[in-house]
Amino acid sequence: MDTIKVSANSRTSAVAGAIAGVVREHRRAEVQAIGAAAVNQAIKALVIATGYLKNDGINVACVPEFTEVTIEDKVRTAIKLIIEP
Amino acid sequence: MDTIKVSANSRTSAVAGAIAGVVREHRRAEVQAIGAAAVNQAIKALVIATGYLKNDGINVACVPEFTEVTIEDKVRTAIKLIIEP
Repeated sequence: MDTIKVSANSRTSAVAGAIAGVVREHRRAEVQAIGAAAVNQAIKALVIATGYLKNDGINVACVPEFTEVTIEDKVRTAIKLIIEP
Repeated sequence: MDTIKVSANSRTSAVAGAIAGVVREHRRAEVQAIGAAAVNQAIKALVIATGYLKNDGINVACVPEFTEVTIEDKVRTAIKLIIEP
């Protein structure tokens, strides 16, 4: 299962569709975001995806974690959202 | 139970302590944030609070929702995080 990576420019509806699709298939999704604008997009997408999944009878909740990612040789702290029923 | 309101300038450690305290007392906390910077602070605080509560044997997850709040006669969309074991 791939991590869904969200940037400040990600469209929330596209991310929401991705989250819902991955949860339907794998019963779990991971979303990664770096920076305030990306985290905000990820949370808005999660609200929308939660609505989609509720229509399918799947109630999800999320647990956020810190995670370190290396981008162009620099270590940055990302937020990872673990989304599960 | 009062909603914990988070702004862009909120200290994450203070918000984390508030979340953990409210969850310990009420088995549920609500956090409200308006704007990307505030949502980011709220999520970082939730990661820290999740660690505090795990030490107490309480595993929490969150469900985010949109909510409308009126500030100085203007309606704004906020993110509300419902945090429960």
